[in-house]
Amino acid sequence: MGSVAFDSVKTPFGEVEEVLGGSATYFSTAASYFTDVSLVAVVGEDFPEAHLDFLKGRGINLEGLERSPGRTFRWKGEYSYQLNEAKTLKTELNVFQSFRPKLPPSYCEASLVFLANIDPELQSDVLKQVKKPKLVACDTMNFWIEGKLDALIKTLASVDILIINDGEARELAGEVNLVKAAKKIIGFGPKILVVKQGEYGALMFNGETIFSAPAYPIENVFDPTGAGDSFAGGFMGYLSKCETLNDAAIRQAVIYGSTMASFNVEAFSLDRMRSLKQEEIESRYHAFKALTAFEPVTNRAS
Amino acid sequence: MGSVAFDSVKTPFGEVEEVLGGSATYFSTAASYFTDVSLVAVVGEDFPEAHLDFLKGRGINLEGLERSPGRTFRWKGEYSYQLNEAKTLKTELNVFQSFRPKLPPSYCEASLVFLANIDPELQSDVLKQVKKPKLVACDTMNFWIEGKLDALIKTLASVDILIINDGEARELAGEVNLVKAAKKIIGFGPKILVVKQGEYGALMFNGETIFSAPAYPIENVFDPTGAGDSFAGGFMGYLSKCETLNDAAIRQAVIYGSTMASFNVEAFSLDRMRSLKQEEIESRYHAFKALTAFEPVTNRAS
Repeated sequence: MGSVAFDSVKTPFGEVEEVLGGSATYFSTAASYFTDVSLVAVVGEDFPEAHLDFLKGRGINLEGLERSPGRTFRWKGEYSYQLNEAKTLKTELNVFQSFRPKLPPSYCEASLVFLANIDPELQSDVLKQVKKPKLVACDTMNFWIEGKLDALIKTLASVDILIINDGEARELAGEVNLVKAAKKIIGFGPKILVVKQGEYGALMFNGETIFSAPAYPIENVFDPTGAGDSFAGGFMGYLSKCETLNDAAIRQAVIYGSTMASFNVEAFSLDRMRSLKQEEIESRYHAFKALTAFEPVTNRAS
Repeated sequence: MGSVAFDSVKTPFGEVEEVLGGSATYFSTAASYFTDVSLVAVVGEDFPEAHLDFLKGRGINLEGLERSPGRTFRWKGEYSYQLNEAKTLKTELNVFQSFRPKLPPSYCEASLVFLANIDPELQSDVLKQVKKPKLVACDTMNFWIEGKLDALIKTLASVDILIINDGEARELAGEVNLVKAAKKIIGFGPKILVVKQGEYGALMFNGETIFSAPAYPIENVFDPTGAGDSFAGGFMGYLSKCETLNDAAIRQAVIYGSTMASFNVEAFSLDRMRSLKQEEIESRYHAFKALTAFEPVTNRAS
């Protein structure tokens, strides 16, 4: 569950107007490479068939995609050369403003649930509608940490995995040191915390163990929009295929998440996903292995 | 070769006045856990015996430590809660201003040379005095990139490994993207580029291959001063014990460098090195393995 949107994005490498975007779109598309995905979101009367066809073409169940009178959610943002953080120029909530998701009956049987970054009260409402989720992950942002902390803390109590960026983790915990911040956040409910660090990769805190994953070094980063949701999609998509959700599986899922994020930034909108092949995903997963591998000491002279 | 200094440092966790510091001090002390080190630097008449005794106690050869009339080099800096970058409050070059290193005869036979961050003309002068170095690494900073680029480019042509931080790499190459920046810098001469990224770890570029190492997540970072030179000391110290300087050895060296840096930040000055034991180094090296390990996909259902 999240947003389906029109994005207008400017980066140092180009500019696009009203292209397909939104957290639910990026998440579902990335996850669709691993598993069956059912999307929950809302669009307006202006949303074109071609975008629906793309999502259907990825096998995504759109029964939970509501179409409401009015205009689709729109976001306009800009990135500087650093590409680390978007500057939001304009947000038009439109049909998203009055969205109160009601899950189709088949959705209530879902075993894995991802709640993208939206109002934590809506996250709780949706989660209540799922009968027996095996694994629940969510995202959030500074806007909710600052404006709806009580509701967010309530949502976190029912969540297994929180996936946020490092600035958000520090703000949520009120603690600059990430190791201390992670302990505090795990105290709020989630057993696992994944801290996204953009071009620096991700840290995963699972009880007392920590896993550090790099970002894949990309020579041509075009547009970071959707990287976090693509990460979450690869992460949850992979976990849905795992028999046991142990630490090894979660680590592999972090790498699959990083893999999907690394492809996503190679083009505007979801354009890289329009041509991405399963073999490319497996090949980049192995490239992550080569990127991080080091042997125990073997050739030391004395 | 580098500086031996008095540092006055303020971090959110405390404050110290005129404690032992300097790039050559941090480098030599870290390297001394792996190999025999010969230091080249200058101190003034105010430099206390106790500091010399500490360095001698670590087995460091001080024949190349000149004592000149005047005061020792002093640096004063401050860190905010982010701990990423020092704000320099005061630099007093003192005896360092007129330092023209002349290597003792035994030093000229050195096989590994590390040129810490000083004037690139001095780096070249020192390097010329070493007869047949097997491996030369150096550091530099924005001050030299901006003020003595020609001399720096000349030094780089004679260097095997450049160890700098990400901001410096971007500035030196005039290129924001690190993969592209690395290619450009390798074109200047060094076969290998190590990019230090502070709390995010390090990237090592060796021809076409890239190695990504995390920083060790530390719950109590007291003072980042000297982390980069401790990294270089662990890195070069480990390499000096390797029979072959292949990619595997360089990767292991990056982890030993990260290990030494991670210890260094746990206390002010070189205080953590006063108690650090060999077993702790080996144990943290293995902790890096646990921190980054992920298996190939094994437990996927279909």
